[in-house]
Amino acid sequence: MYEYSHGGNAVFETGDESVIDLSASVNPLGMPEGVMDAIIREIPNCERYPDSLSHKLREKIAEYEKVDADLVFCGNGASDIIFRLPGAVCAKRVMVTAPTFSDYERSALSFGSETIRYTLSSSNEFDIDSGFIDAVRRAKPDLVFVCNPNNPTGRLTEKRLIAELLDCCRELGAVVVVDECFLDFTEKADEYECKAFLTNFSRLVILKAFTKLFALPGLRLGYAICADKRLVESLYRSGADWSVSNLAQAAGIAAIDGAESFIERSRKYVSDERKIMEKALTQLGYRVFQSEANYVFLRNPYPFDLRDELDKVGIRIRSCINFHGLGGDYFRIAVSTKENNIMFLEAIEELNRK
Amino acid sequence: MYEYSHGGNAVFETGDESVIDLSASVNPLGMPEGVMDAIIREIPNCERYPDSLSHKLREKIAEYEKVDADLVFCGNGASDIIFRLPGAVCAKRVMVTAPTFSDYERSALSFGSETIRYTLSSSNEFDIDSGFIDAVRRAKPDLVFVCNPNNPTGRLTEKRLIAELLDCCRELGAVVVVDECFLDFTEKADEYECKAFLTNFSRLVILKAFTKLFALPGLRLGYAICADKRLVESLYRSGADWSVSNLAQAAGIAAIDGAESFIERSRKYVSDERKIMEKALTQLGYRVFQSEANYVFLRNPYPFDLRDELDKVGIRIRSCINFHGLGGDYFRIAVSTKENNIMFLEAIEELNRK
Repeated sequence: MYEYSHGGNAVFETGDESVIDLSASVNPLGMPEGVMDAIIREIPNCERYPDSLSHKLREKIAEYEKVDADLVFCGNGASDIIFRLPGAVCAKRVMVTAPTFSDYERSALSFGSETIRYTLSSSNEFDIDSGFIDAVRRAKPDLVFVCNPNNPTGRLTEKRLIAELLDCCRELGAVVVVDECFLDFTEKADEYECKAFLTNFSRLVILKAFTKLFALPGLRLGYAICADKRLVESLYRSGADWSVSNLAQAAGIAAIDGAESFIERSRKYVSDERKIMEKALTQLGYRVFQSEANYVFLRNPYPFDLRDELDKVGIRIRSCINFHGLGGDYFRIAVSTKENNIMFLEAIEELNRK
Repeated sequence: MYEYSHGGNAVFETGDESVIDLSASVNPLGMPEGVMDAIIREIPNCERYPDSLSHKLREKIAEYEKVDADLVFCGNGASDIIFRLPGAVCAKRVMVTAPTFSDYERSALSFGSETIRYTLSSSNEFDIDSGFIDAVRRAKPDLVFVCNPNNPTGRLTEKRLIAELLDCCRELGAVVVVDECFLDFTEKADEYECKAFLTNFSRLVILKAFTKLFALPGLRLGYAICADKRLVESLYRSGADWSVSNLAQAAGIAAIDGAESFIERSRKYVSDERKIMEKALTQLGYRVFQSEANYVFLRNPYPFDLRDELDKVGIRIRSCINFHGLGGDYFRIAVSTKENNIMFLEAIEELNRK
């Protein structure tokens, strides 16, 4: 049987609705106001096929992102778009960092592309450095994935480095994907977002999801922004039409209404909570890599498996054992509601007291 | 810009909510009772990731289909599964009939597989005959698609022929997909369904959708049944996890409750209406190919474009001009509600009076 390799499945796995699942990182504020009503209003329209070109949703996203609607492609979650990319690019060689989100490599594998991994160093906080660009230049991939901030480390890559990467990939003729699915959680989002590069480098694809920020992982909605219209067309060709349900299209439109104040509140909440968690974990002796996302990333110096121990008290965190470039002593912990975070910290304090 | 090539988009294209869209074939009885409530109850759970293995839904489908739950794979509509298949099989050569549903060929193209088309003959009612099996034997594909009843012709393929095809493909080592998405609309479904072959030929994939029968195209839900566990595992690997939303999983479970009486009513309604439409169209001089699905298929002998003429009075039908093996004089018309069907027949009578 197929083995699921991500977080967020603690309830299905344990059958226990009361488990605190910190293994997937979703906005603790929950879905924005208005989304539920929009979904309910849309249900009768499920008797019709969805608009496969998501016209209204793309217009709404375009207005929000201040780009042309033709540059926007909507998918059944960002992961749908990730799986379309190797085919859309006809990728022979795909470059990723290690660690990073495993779906980049899985999508390459499903299309039969070779994957080249650039291993990030713990001594450099797992930050992407200019060595990555040298490695890209040597490997000559046709598709490069950068996750910003990176999953599971929460570390940001500076725009200066992204610009260098784009220059290098322009020469190589490679497509660059910058996955900004977690970027909206950082207070420095404006300083790091890559949208401005679209005008100079059309083969840049920026990925964003409704999953994390708008707390809608169960609904499935993500989008890409890309200035190369032929590449956007290839994304349509590389997967099923009608991949975005009517309900997801309606929910997406509703989520964007009032997004600005929602994002501001979310950022502050997540950032405040993350700092509390990171400080407490550092004091308990964990090696905390300062994250800019809605999760904490750490190395456990103690001789017990943090996930297994917390599982015993009904708290699930994400072991990073199946991330290339990491080991079983690394963990990713979602920043959840204040209540859940306190329970997590109390549980880990209790554990360290033993 | 990407050009949409299917039916069911008349409202988006025209911007007119009052258009009667007979270009996509969905159960005129609408979604089953209980589905809407199930969706509404599930909305709060959208803040969690979906169960990527759809455990509860697969168990429900397995019970309904009387197969083991491990043989069931759920997708974001049957088209999601179709697009996973060439990659799952690592298909070099894909065999299809012409005409048939275009997504088989599109999925092959997206994976870079070669497609071989076997052209069906109008003089043989576009029925699949033993010549198809000879062609498969010669072409040596690794993946074969058969749509039963076929889209857009509505014609059934007998089990005797499917059995021959499976024998041939066992020798070739090819995977056979029998798409039964429209089969539940025919009163002869029990006589034609291929499930019994699963025990003898594990590399048979049967496709079914909630889209058509349960009138949920906007929600996206389909499934495959296959006895080859490695092939099922490859289907998981050939696309994104979490492709089936929480809402689709909940709706699917609700739709199956009481499915038997719903299907019985649907069959009778659709069959009665289709016969009325087919008789009237034959009397008007159209060449009607007797369909067993929830659509009528015909050739227009008159020197006007049936779709364009009906568009003028707010009725959209499906031109078959972009189906391989057909031309602009073939049309597929959904069997809709009695009210819509009457309006369609009145419009076409008016047209023929001119």
